[in-house]
Amino acid sequence: MKWIDGGITAPKGYKAAGFAAGIKKKKKDIALVISDSQAVVAGAFTTNMVKAAPVLWDQQIVASNEPVKAIVINSGNANACTGEQGMLDAAKMAETTAKALNCQDTEVLVCSTGVIGVLLPMDKIVSGIDNCASLLDTTNEAAYDAAWAICTTDTFVKQVAVELDIGGHTVKIGGMAKGSGMIHPNMATMLSFITTDAEIDKGLLQDLLGDSIAESYNMISVDGDTSTNDTVIVLANGCSGAPRITSGSDYEKLFADAFGAVHAELAKLIVKDGEGAGKFIQVEIEGAASVEDARLMARSVISSNLVKAAFFGADANWGRILCAMGYAKAQLDPSSVSMDYSSPVGTIAVLKHGLPLAFDEDVAKKILNEKEIVVHAVVGTGIGKATAWGCDLTYEYVRINGDYRS
Amino acid sequence: MKWIDGGITAPKGYKAAGFAAGIKKKKKDIALVISDSQAVVAGAFTTNMVKAAPVLWDQQIVASNEPVKAIVINSGNANACTGEQGMLDAAKMAETTAKALNCQDTEVLVCSTGVIGVLLPMDKIVSGIDNCASLLDTTNEAAYDAAWAICTTDTFVKQVAVELDIGGHTVKIGGMAKGSGMIHPNMATMLSFITTDAEIDKGLLQDLLGDSIAESYNMISVDGDTSTNDTVIVLANGCSGAPRITSGSDYEKLFADAFGAVHAELAKLIVKDGEGAGKFIQVEIEGAASVEDARLMARSVISSNLVKAAFFGADANWGRILCAMGYAKAQLDPSSVSMDYSSPVGTIAVLKHGLPLAFDEDVAKKILNEKEIVVHAVVGTGIGKATAWGCDLTYEYVRINGDYRS
Repeated sequence: MKWIDGGITAPKGYKAAGFAAGIKKKKKDIALVISDSQAVVAGAFTTNMVKAAPVLWDQQIVASNEPVKAIVINSGNANACTGEQGMLDAAKMAETTAKALNCQDTEVLVCSTGVIGVLLPMDKIVSGIDNCASLLDTTNEAAYDAAWAICTTDTFVKQVAVELDIGGHTVKIGGMAKGSGMIHPNMATMLSFITTDAEIDKGLLQDLLGDSIAESYNMISVDGDTSTNDTVIVLANGCSGAPRITSGSDYEKLFADAFGAVHAELAKLIVKDGEGAGKFIQVEIEGAASVEDARLMARSVISSNLVKAAFFGADANWGRILCAMGYAKAQLDPSSVSMDYSSPVGTIAVLKHGLPLAFDEDVAKKILNEKEIVVHAVVGTGIGKATAWGCDLTYEYVRINGDYRS
Repeated sequence: MKWIDGGITAPKGYKAAGFAAGIKKKKKDIALVISDSQAVVAGAFTTNMVKAAPVLWDQQIVASNEPVKAIVINSGNANACTGEQGMLDAAKMAETTAKALNCQDTEVLVCSTGVIGVLLPMDKIVSGIDNCASLLDTTNEAAYDAAWAICTTDTFVKQVAVELDIGGHTVKIGGMAKGSGMIHPNMATMLSFITTDAEIDKGLLQDLLGDSIAESYNMISVDGDTSTNDTVIVLANGCSGAPRITSGSDYEKLFADAFGAVHAELAKLIVKDGEGAGKFIQVEIEGAASVEDARLMARSVISSNLVKAAFFGADANWGRILCAMGYAKAQLDPSSVSMDYSSPVGTIAVLKHGLPLAFDEDVAKKILNEKEIVVHAVVGTGIGKATAWGCDLTYEYVRINGDYRS
């Protein structure tokens, strides 16, 4: 597996475009992704009981087992809490895209992110989709434009691409994502779109997506809120010419590793662009009774306000970390826990088998003043391992999310 | 039921004292509560897997079904993550107290709050307990001194007392609590102590405590972390002379209401003194499918950083509240939700049956600029109701918890 330039147009047979349709004041706000040939689709959606209209539309399509051709995404308006009209508008977005691309409505997935509780400006959306369709291209620039058009308050474009060898053929996987954005009165929404030219069964693709999500988007936390619009969609069009990837094959393992790496990288980019984030924190747990226990503890640590505030203050506050592990609802024997902090400038051990170690506060401060910090905890002798990613809690976070109107 | 002056010495047969033993630099740091006659005890303890030594000591005593005489509490050091020596030190605190009060070690409950991972300064603790015992008194001042001695970074003393009539006799309930404090390297710890001169079975008292906790301490959130030392202890010594309160009796209902009110009031005081809290937020959910669903939603809203930051910014951001209700893992039909905000200066409806209402932003701002705000949501036609209390997320919270060393 090799990281390559580009994003969702890196795999064969995909075009993309981004266009400024006027939903947002100036920036690009409509994106299209299209596959030349029909693609199988896998999807994962917010578990929030309050689901935006496009999420409901996409869930039906993913459940239908039919192939798809395109994804249309708008930013600036989430089409959430918009009732019956919202459902009609999501369908209209699919219909408009299908007409422009000469496919069926049911071959088009729809995503929205932005304001909640406001109806979509459908005139702008409809003409925007038509304009965007005329810009579709296979270039890296086109992928970049699409990746920019799905952003809200993201400060940089998040896209990645990899290639790998499957039976002597090059298979590529590309992806783009947007992270936590805040547009009145919205909450952080995560969108992620993956394209691949691998040939793979829909069922296997969906299974691999579930595995990848458990180790990527589900292991990050910016503020712990789960939005009405969170969506991950994967298209696989088989255009690489590589042999079909089947369940249990060696190819599956190769593909799964690359696929997981793409999701994990996008997840980390989302955290790094977290609202008000000043530091990137990686929490590694090993020796837990199970993988699930390790994940629970890693996520609990990365989600704790007290832990996050301590990182903001460059404070080697292992007590807060141990405490967050303790209330994670995982098996934990505190007397088995050893812990250290590290960053590019060094490592410092703070806890050994549950008892505090004396350490040099100045050295700790120096390590924790870095921008990327790893907390590593061994919690026992079990096989459970997990890594979670998050950020510190800053004045800036409070400012953006409290004062953003002013 | 009537609110009266005083705290834990308001009921008959209790004495208390607070003393500055030098564990903290200047402030009182040892408290004693003693019952003249043996009392039944009920207790509730942190669910954190990492439990401080005194928590383990108290759990054994509460489980033993034997009566008790006293509680000894120190602040300034949590006796947590202190291994075998910590257990010995907790036992020594009980032994010292028992000797001073002429009772058995196993009649003494022990609580600690403060620094984690540092051994107790036992010389100061031992002489402090002796000195404190010499100050024991039944006065309101003595109760106040004890309530002050259990504080860490609390900015005010939290104590309450009520009286009620049980079969022509006056029964009293008194209480004191400490809230979220931050002493390096500790996390927020909640301690609450209740005394009553009611005569009541231990089993019934424990049941009523469980019910009260579900509607008080478990419905508050300052930062969502559950500490190693959280403890609630109730003593009932029967000194009122009122008839025994038995399960299913009319007296039970009377007592339970007053008992619940004491816990709820202490819980609200804890929130009002939350670290960096600028506003007091009450979230009322009704019409949920069950009480548990209502509690899940109310707690989810009050725990959301995005919701809390919106209150800091006086932003009528109902989308974040609806979203937090949506991911609470409770049954919710978004199209059934109606919501309003109110404060002493007015009420404003923002959502009706899932659809946004137009409202005057200036009026909303005025309402949300108040110090005490109520969010009221009707989520359906079910019987489930719950109220939760919390605070906003402020720069001050981040400062205290990030920068407190400087």
